[in-house]
Amino acid sequence: MSIPFPIEAYLRDVSGRVDALLLQLAEKRRRGAVPRFSEAMEYALLGGGKRLRPALALASCEAFAGDVGDGGLAMRFGLSLEMIHTYSLVHDDLPCMDDDDLRRGRPTVHKRFDEATAVLVGDGLQSLAFETLLATSDPRASALAALLATAAFHMVEGQAIDIAAEGRALSEREVLELMAAKTGALIAAAVAGGAIAASGEERGMLSVGDKLGLAFQIADDLLDRTADTATLGKAAGKDVAAGKATLPALLGIEEARRRADAVCTEALAALEPLGPRAEALRALARFVVTRKR
Amino acid sequence: MSIPFPIEAYLRDVSGRVDALLLQLAEKRRRGAVPRFSEAMEYALLGGGKRLRPALALASCEAFAGDVGDGGLAMRFGLSLEMIHTYSLVHDDLPCMDDDDLRRGRPTVHKRFDEATAVLVGDGLQSLAFETLLATSDPRASALAALLATAAFHMVEGQAIDIAAEGRALSEREVLELMAAKTGALIAAAVAGGAIAASGEERGMLSVGDKLGLAFQIADDLLDRTADTATLGKAAGKDVAAGKATLPALLGIEEARRRADAVCTEALAALEPLGPRAEALRALARFVVTRKR
Repeated sequence: MSIPFPIEAYLRDVSGRVDALLLQLAEKRRRGAVPRFSEAMEYALLGGGKRLRPALALASCEAFAGDVGDGGLAMRFGLSLEMIHTYSLVHDDLPCMDDDDLRRGRPTVHKRFDEATAVLVGDGLQSLAFETLLATSDPRASALAALLATAAFHMVEGQAIDIAAEGRALSEREVLELMAAKTGALIAAAVAGGAIAASGEERGMLSVGDKLGLAFQIADDLLDRTADTATLGKAAGKDVAAGKATLPALLGIEEARRRADAVCTEALAALEPLGPRAEALRALARFVVTRKR
Repeated sequence: MSIPFPIEAYLRDVSGRVDALLLQLAEKRRRGAVPRFSEAMEYALLGGGKRLRPALALASCEAFAGDVGDGGLAMRFGLSLEMIHTYSLVHDDLPCMDDDDLRRGRPTVHKRFDEATAVLVGDGLQSLAFETLLATSDPRASALAALLATAAFHMVEGQAIDIAAEGRALSEREVLELMAAKTGALIAAAVAGGAIAASGEERGMLSVGDKLGLAFQIADDLLDRTADTATLGKAAGKDVAAGKATLPALLGIEEARRRADAVCTEALAALEPLGPRAEALRALARFVVTRKR
């Protein structure tokens, strides 16, 4: 009988380490900077969050026997992923975008501070992501920064597709394209980046990451329909109310759930040959579709 | 008798090359992307502009005998500088920031398109800057990307200082700090980056760039007071109307002009030992304070 991987403890460990390192970075920035701006930056960066992207990068790095310590390249990459992810949330929440008041159970940055500060915090976090990632002499950082830049651009394109789609029915192909760009790109980069940090090459992890990105987004869209606001820490049922183009909206809840499971199974099959070292990554792949938040 | 350096022809040559390369990049992006987003991106990127930052990077690279061709690292860096600069203009013009309707003689991006698109265009251009810069196997690209990230972050901090200062009188020290961050950082990076592209080291050009950045910003603030809207391609007299903290506002026009000249003279003195190869860079240093637009 095999003992199930302690995924919740694993995620707690990663998020504890990520939070501590981000706090260190924010504190270093605080000196000499504009108080309100630094405060808003810290507020955005340290607002909780699952830290799933750093976890995926670290687990993928572990699968290829890389350094998963706080001082290693995979963690550095994980922090930069989290900065890009956080910036995208801050900008997505803006009144001219999704106009959200609540994020991770707290007022969004433009609500807590103001719109101009939210724009600048997002802009600054994107710069800081690249600065953090490149502040090492590790020659692999450059490849990771290129990967990150491409994913970050793709993510913005996804947001643009989303805006362009407003009020228009999308085909299944279009919804898949939107999901691959908007969330898939950064998750795929996380998984591929871990392998690159460990071995200098992506080792098929870009494709595994694509699958996990898709599974993650379907699960997210399902949670929007089935979970409540308190659990999510953001407004639930918003996609439905806004008539957003999602796979559950297009195919129904049952079929969407089946798709997420199927794509997760594909990812697990691709990870199988990596053996015991990929245990955390496989557990994350399962978590992505079974999570309740 | 020495023949004056043909600075206008030099700038025309650089901007022609930069525009052609940016258009190529935009056209490559256009395929398969969201039409409105691509169009807005192109609109922002190809709206004219002096292309002063690429010119500084190329001239600095030339001063250290580097490759200043279209396929060289200095031009690649120049394009990424221009993308960061353009993104900052698009976001600075937003209603929640400076709320400008006119830029380079045309409606600003949020006026011509919409606010959400303007946010995304800025976000995407920042990613694209790093993607473009890192899409080469040249090992110096990594150092340039780190330089660019630090400058881009500094620029955002400058904008945050500017916002925080609204309605409050700044000391001379604070105004200088604001200028060094908001425009100085990217101009200093341009001059230092050219030297790094050529030789792998900044060769004292960060300090020269700091001086040119300061001279540039004083000249800009003077133009806001002395030139008209048609010449500037953006609303003239806006800083005065908004009570912005500038050196001309603090010290008067004559004293501000004297400061710009003095700091330019310092930069020229530092460039003197570089001999004839630094002729274009010295001409740019003079142009920065004597320009009429």
